[in-house]
Amino acid sequence: MSDRPIDQEVVETENEKRQKELASDFAALGESLDRRGVAIDAVVEKVRGFTVAVPSWGVGTGGTRFARFPGPGEPRGIMEKLDDCAVIQQLGRATPAVSLHIPWDRADPSALKEKAASLGLSFDAMNSNTFQDHPDDPKQPLSYKFGSLSHADPAVRAQAVEHNLDVVEFGQAIGSRAITVWIGDGSNFPGQADLSRSFERYLESAKAIYAGLPEDWRLFSEHKMYEPAFYSTVVQDWGTNLLIAQELGPQAFCLVDLGHHAPNVNIEQIVSRLIFAQKLGGFHFNDAKYGDDDLDAGSVDPFRLFLVFNELVEAGEALERLHPAHMIDQSHNVTDPIESLIRSADEIRRAYAQALLVDRKALRGHQDANDAMMASECLKRAFRTDVTPILAEARRRDGGAIDPIAAYRASGYRAKVAAERPASKGSGGGIV
Amino acid sequence: MSDRPIDQEVVETENEKRQKELASDFAALGESLDRRGVAIDAVVEKVRGFTVAVPSWGVGTGGTRFARFPGPGEPRGIMEKLDDCAVIQQLGRATPAVSLHIPWDRADPSALKEKAASLGLSFDAMNSNTFQDHPDDPKQPLSYKFGSLSHADPAVRAQAVEHNLDVVEFGQAIGSRAITVWIGDGSNFPGQADLSRSFERYLESAKAIYAGLPEDWRLFSEHKMYEPAFYSTVVQDWGTNLLIAQELGPQAFCLVDLGHHAPNVNIEQIVSRLIFAQKLGGFHFNDAKYGDDDLDAGSVDPFRLFLVFNELVEAGEALERLHPAHMIDQSHNVTDPIESLIRSADEIRRAYAQALLVDRKALRGHQDANDAMMASECLKRAFRTDVTPILAEARRRDGGAIDPIAAYRASGYRAKVAAERPASKGSGGGIV
Amino acid sequence: MSDRPIDQEVVETENEKRQKELASDFAALGESLDRRGVAIDAVVEKVRGFTVAVPSWGVGTGGTRFARFPGPGEPRGIMEKLDDCAVIQQLGRATPAVSLHIPWDRADPSALKEKAASLGLSFDAMNSNTFQDHPDDPKQPLSYKFGSLSHADPAVRAQAVEHNLDVVEFGQAIGSRAITVWIGDGSNFPGQADLSRSFERYLESAKAIYAGLPEDWRLFSEHKMYEPAFYSTVVQDWGTNLLIAQELGPQAFCLVDLGHHAPNVNIEQIVSRLIFAQKLGGFHFNDAKYGDDDLDAGSVDPFRLFLVFNELVEAGEALERLHPAHMIDQSHNVTDPIESLIRSADEIRRAYAQALLVDRKALRGHQDANDAMMASECLKRAFRTDVTPILAEARRRDGGAIDPIAAYRASGYRAKVAAERPASKGSGGGIV
Amino acid sequence: MSDRPIDQEVVETENEKRQKELASDFAALGESLDRRGVAIDAVVEKVRGFTVAVPSWGVGTGGTRFARFPGPGEPRGIMEKLDDCAVIQQLGRATPAVSLHIPWDRADPSALKEKAASLGLSFDAMNSNTFQDHPDDPKQPLSYKFGSLSHADPAVRAQAVEHNLDVVEFGQAIGSRAITVWIGDGSNFPGQADLSRSFERYLESAKAIYAGLPEDWRLFSEHKMYEPAFYSTVVQDWGTNLLIAQELGPQAFCLVDLGHHAPNVNIEQIVSRLIFAQKLGGFHFNDAKYGDDDLDAGSVDPFRLFLVFNELVEAGEALERLHPAHMIDQSHNVTDPIESLIRSADEIRRAYAQALLVDRKALRGHQDANDAMMASECLKRAFRTDVTPILAEARRRDGGAIDPIAAYRASGYRAKVAAERPASKGSGGGIV
Repeated sequence: MSDRPIDQEVVETENEKRQKELASDFAALGESLDRRGVAIDAVVEKVRGFTVAVPSWGVGTGGTRFARFPGPGEPRGIMEKLDDCAVIQQLGRATPAVSLHIPWDRADPSALKEKAASLGLSFDAMNSNTFQDHPDDPKQPLSYKFGSLSHADPAVRAQAVEHNLDVVEFGQAIGSRAITVWIGDGSNFPGQADLSRSFERYLESAKAIYAGLPEDWRLFSEHKMYEPAFYSTVVQDWGTNLLIAQELGPQAFCLVDLGHHAPNVNIEQIVSRLIFAQKLGGFHFNDAKYGDDDLDAGSVDPFRLFLVFNELVEAGEALERLHPAHMIDQSHNVTDPIESLIRSADEIRRAYAQALLVDRKALRGHQDANDAMMASECLKRAFRTDVTPILAEARRRDGGAIDPIAAYRASGYRAKVAAERPASKGSGGGIV
Repeated sequence: MSDRPIDQEVVETENEKRQKELASDFAALGESLDRRGVAIDAVVEKVRGFTVAVPSWGVGTGGTRFARFPGPGEPRGIMEKLDDCAVIQQLGRATPAVSLHIPWDRADPSALKEKAASLGLSFDAMNSNTFQDHPDDPKQPLSYKFGSLSHADPAVRAQAVEHNLDVVEFGQAIGSRAITVWIGDGSNFPGQADLSRSFERYLESAKAIYAGLPEDWRLFSEHKMYEPAFYSTVVQDWGTNLLIAQELGPQAFCLVDLGHHAPNVNIEQIVSRLIFAQKLGGFHFNDAKYGDDDLDAGSVDPFRLFLVFNELVEAGEALERLHPAHMIDQSHNVTDPIESLIRSADEIRRAYAQALLVDRKALRGHQDANDAMMASECLKRAFRTDVTPILAEARRRDGGAIDPIAAYRASGYRAKVAAERPASKGSGGGIV
Repeated sequence: MSDRPIDQEVVETENEKRQKELASDFAALGESLDRRGVAIDAVVEKVRGFTVAVPSWGVGTGGTRFARFPGPGEPRGIMEKLDDCAVIQQLGRATPAVSLHIPWDRADPSALKEKAASLGLSFDAMNSNTFQDHPDDPKQPLSYKFGSLSHADPAVRAQAVEHNLDVVEFGQAIGSRAITVWIGDGSNFPGQADLSRSFERYLESAKAIYAGLPEDWRLFSEHKMYEPAFYSTVVQDWGTNLLIAQELGPQAFCLVDLGHHAPNVNIEQIVSRLIFAQKLGGFHFNDAKYGDDDLDAGSVDPFRLFLVFNELVEAGEALERLHPAHMIDQSHNVTDPIESLIRSADEIRRAYAQALLVDRKALRGHQDANDAMMASECLKRAFRTDVTPILAEARRRDGGAIDPIAAYRASGYRAKVAAERPASKGSGGGIV
Repeated sequence: MSDRPIDQEVVETENEKRQKELASDFAALGESLDRRGVAIDAVVEKVRGFTVAVPSWGVGTGGTRFARFPGPGEPRGIMEKLDDCAVIQQLGRATPAVSLHIPWDRADPSALKEKAASLGLSFDAMNSNTFQDHPDDPKQPLSYKFGSLSHADPAVRAQAVEHNLDVVEFGQAIGSRAITVWIGDGSNFPGQADLSRSFERYLESAKAIYAGLPEDWRLFSEHKMYEPAFYSTVVQDWGTNLLIAQELGPQAFCLVDLGHHAPNVNIEQIVSRLIFAQKLGGFHFNDAKYGDDDLDAGSVDPFRLFLVFNELVEAGEALERLHPAHMIDQSHNVTDPIESLIRSADEIRRAYAQALLVDRKALRGHQDANDAMMASECLKRAFRTDVTPILAEARRRDGGAIDPIAAYRASGYRAKVAAERPASKGSGGGIV
């Protein structure tokens, strides 16, 4: 039995207050779904089986180039980050794995493994970092100001490749099985970079990383339209990402971050195309209204999140072969990061549960009959269903909290760690 | 010697007025370029060798779903359209080929060939049409309301495939060597279409067309973000387009219409990626500020057009192997279509000429040195050069007009055809 | 008692099938809302009081510049359009008024009033049309190709003003109390129009219309980012719209069409600002993913529609003084227009009902405490509530159909009118 | 005579190398313009009279939330920043004024004035900062995490108002005559902020600042679509900005930052509308492809910059009354900031010079005749003109460098200050 950062008593006391209401709501929903031919328990069990990794960097307060406003009790290192991740998992029961970021989270691997095991956590995909300089790292003396894997200078490329291989090695030691490669490489001005040569250099570097990949590992390349580069970005969209995964080989897949696309783009269709190409590697979940806003999943456009899950459920077996990685990647600037991650995991499960409710046989019938109205309403009916009782019941069955944010607030965890963890010196930002 | 729709006397009289000024401007530019190590005559010769096809449908007045406001003397059929195309070519000397659209331009092939030959014109890529119904065509009784090549009903798909094969056959008869396949297939509501099955059906149909392709033909598939479908479009972006070209085979290529992308997308980078993938088939040139606005090439963002050509010139040999098709695809709603096409061809050549002026050795040096400032200025220097005298001289050497729009206006052509061609009955539009 | 285009027996038979299930769902929801301190009956009554006008042009099949694919039984004139509108109202009970478009709907005013009265319908805001030419109208010989109210030629402006005044006069005769002025005026190329002089001419014309407005009328000006003009549009956004309403006077207000904004724009905030400025005149409801897609309200981004209604409910008394007009403006290209309008009115009421469920006191508390998490969840909780039983019960109490689309299909109305109304000759479109 | 940070000998030596070529190019251009009826000297004189302020923060290296990669010799305080600004002015002669940012640039006012005077610089609009916390400032103990002028807590609002008044007072002491108010206030989630109450609080605070404005001062409010807030921003667009300026009074004006708009927005039209409303206060010049990219002015879309200046020149007298402030606001992430500012000021002058070349009488004629082609070409002709010799000659006549970036590089200034100014400790960023 794992360590519990929050006294389980608190969870149970909070649950008791809500047990009766949940039972009533769950029964009412169950009856309603039953009329639609859906067994609510089967949905609960599927939801219980659906998990999403949290990012280690997500438990700190994020910010913008203008400012970062830290919250109280911010974790000061990876061990404290794992404590916070354990809170999220204890209450929400949806996030048993953590995605690490190197060098930010570098530590003794066995200590890490031990700590995680004690908290009931494991490690999902590793993340390398060649979008920042690491002046204190003797193995990375060269600057990434003008790129990393696609840099004009072969020495910088070699350094960046080496760093990625280090991350893989580190990940192996802690039981990870995948690496996510996101780079900021690109240019700010037309002409600054040769668009084709940059890409060729990227491919050469990526191939060197790929060559060092253990047999049971996967490499996820991540595309992004812009930021930090503001004119061209080397891996700018899923088309380029697909070319990369094709060039690299069968262990290479494309990662879809929901906030990394051009305005108005139909993201669920990209998901569908990557499934077709057998190259969907996984997701960085978040929500966005403007750019890579990194808001809480489902907070701005919940229907879009549902439509992504509709594609995943629709894909069925094809997806099982791909078993995409589900990870959250968000920036929590104005909320308690623990709360945002609990809530986001819940929203992701919500979208999944709603997608499970789609009457696929009926949908297919409407599609084949070109009955746009009924097809549209078929999806909407599933989306409109308030599956909150299913999500709560799934948590409850797994020992989590019926209302995890309420339980978290009741626990006093934030105040406790605020007392233990002195505020970091600077507030960062102000880069403009 | 081909028929000339405009009395060549007019051209010469007009040219005489401008000859002296052109000579002076050309000399001054030549001297200035000489200082930059560029031989102006070599540029003129390259420009003379660069041509772009005009679309047969472009010589009529376009419109929107709200209204179409026809101009005087609109061509009533393909033969009159060819007359108008011949004017464009006579004056501008940049557009010796015409791209036909079937069924709009269906006619007796030998009559077409003869007419074109008499005007000094030839035929570029053919365009099929399964985005409209053709109630008068006995071979197309079924409606494309809900799609064509990706339709849920195999009978509609078969009809659409057959239409495309007919277009290829027709194209063979008139000397074309390529077919552009653009479809409006997609959906207006989430759920209406199965995103993956639609695509699979599209591929099956496209393969059937591809199988019927003569050995020396190319198939261009064209992507478009949206319109006429407003939720999902089957061939929505270059990523999907690439998958298609890969699935079909070595005669299949991707066509890039400059107005078919999401807001803010870096189009020149897509061009670069398609060259890398050896799948760049060609262009539909136009300009756009909002959606698929189909404005005159270079009229809204001339620097973007230059940057596309910068990629083409940069690609050098790699591009020669691909020899992409250059075609205009615009909608002329408020201008005389003949003038817009003359001007657009000129703007396209302008971007090409400017791209030829880029000091590629210096640029490469700046790029390798990460000198973003000098690299950026290197491109800008070429772009800032007013190459108007080069364009005019290229036309002059080919017997065209120094100022083709002035010559066109002087010719009285529009008034003449307005007298000969009665106005069409309806003004269309008003669909909302 | 009004004429009923559909046998009320059908409605009742259909309702009987669903009565028991509705009662059960309504009770369960009522109980759940009761726990949240909300009386379900009060919500039902508010929903019953909320209506939205349908556009006369919406009952025909829409299209794009590429094609229009007409459906069976399209209304051939305003009287048949009113029949279709009466079906929508009979079944949905949310749309007692119709918005007419002149000249499309011109007819004898007393005949119109009589017909409408017999169907239980009335007339909402009038719509003028100076975005098309009307060659058959002796009072409008001049073309609007280059603009109307802002045209460079004072004669065209005078004609357009006169047309608007005619529409007001016509509207008075049939009991309307408002005119919506939407123009397509703008330009396709930088330079084509003088941006400031065009606007000044627009204002001069609009003032002339305003001067002719009856005392109890309102003038709604409608902004739109682009289309049919593709470089600049005279009334391009709410800022310009606000200037207009301010310049005209107290009877002038701004109309917000949900699809007329730039990508990513926060529309609910514009609504809030217009309420602040006391210039919110009303809405053209629809949904959009890319441009002015004119899709069914709430079909693509239902949360956004909810957020708009959240502003309206939040505004409370301030809004009552403004009593904005609620109108649908959509293009039904792939659905039966009657079904789309029934469904859209329902979605609009859904957003309204959900907004009524927001715990405003709690929300305000979270906002004042800067508790972004709880504030966000407070809105989400209301949005997640499946208010379908409330909407159905509201209809039922008013004699409408519990499931109006099912009732419509059961009625056989479309087949009946398809038999009575021969298909229109051309399918339009193909303007490109 | 002011101190010159760079030995004027260097400038003269460099100029000598280019003098002959400039004379030749200038003569050729002069002759060509003469044929168009334009006296080149008059243009040179107007260009000499056109200046733009540089931002003090612009001489440091910018960055993103991901990283900041500092360059050598970064200024460590406002005095060194002024030295760098003096280099820009010495070589480019277009930037005699500096815009300060408080608290970043706080120093003894008389020392500042003296330093600036010694360098031949003066101070343009002041900038306050309530988008960051200032933990070391005893007058600003409260956090702006959840807003400043619109904060829910009146104490925070009072603190922010007070800060702005302090900035005005400081500005008075150094001879400034305007304050630019840009705030990051907004929300990241629907519900987090009450959209209308936030705005009302903002207005109340802004009025308090306005009340403290000296008679000869102007207040510029600056709108921005998003960032740092990602759902709603209190001053999100020019419509809201206009409402603010109207509410405040005759000393309040709207500032237009070219990168602060929604995708595809026609910015030059906003400029035109603000001139109409007599509320155009000025500009923050920069360029952008995606969001608020803060790239060098004219580097990504030079034609757009030209179109903005076309409006300014077109406005003529109306603009003189407004005398808008011209300021650069950019983030220099990959270039030497001094070079970027020299180049940007040059590009701004270029756009101005090109706009001066527009044949306004002809343009007006084409517009009145609805000759979209000729109107478009009329603007293009001016834009295509390579005015580089005019810009160089204007600098030369003012004692600046013919090629200021070449002169800067020849001067060795960067190496010199790199030796004098030790690198700052941290590289910032990494906020994610």
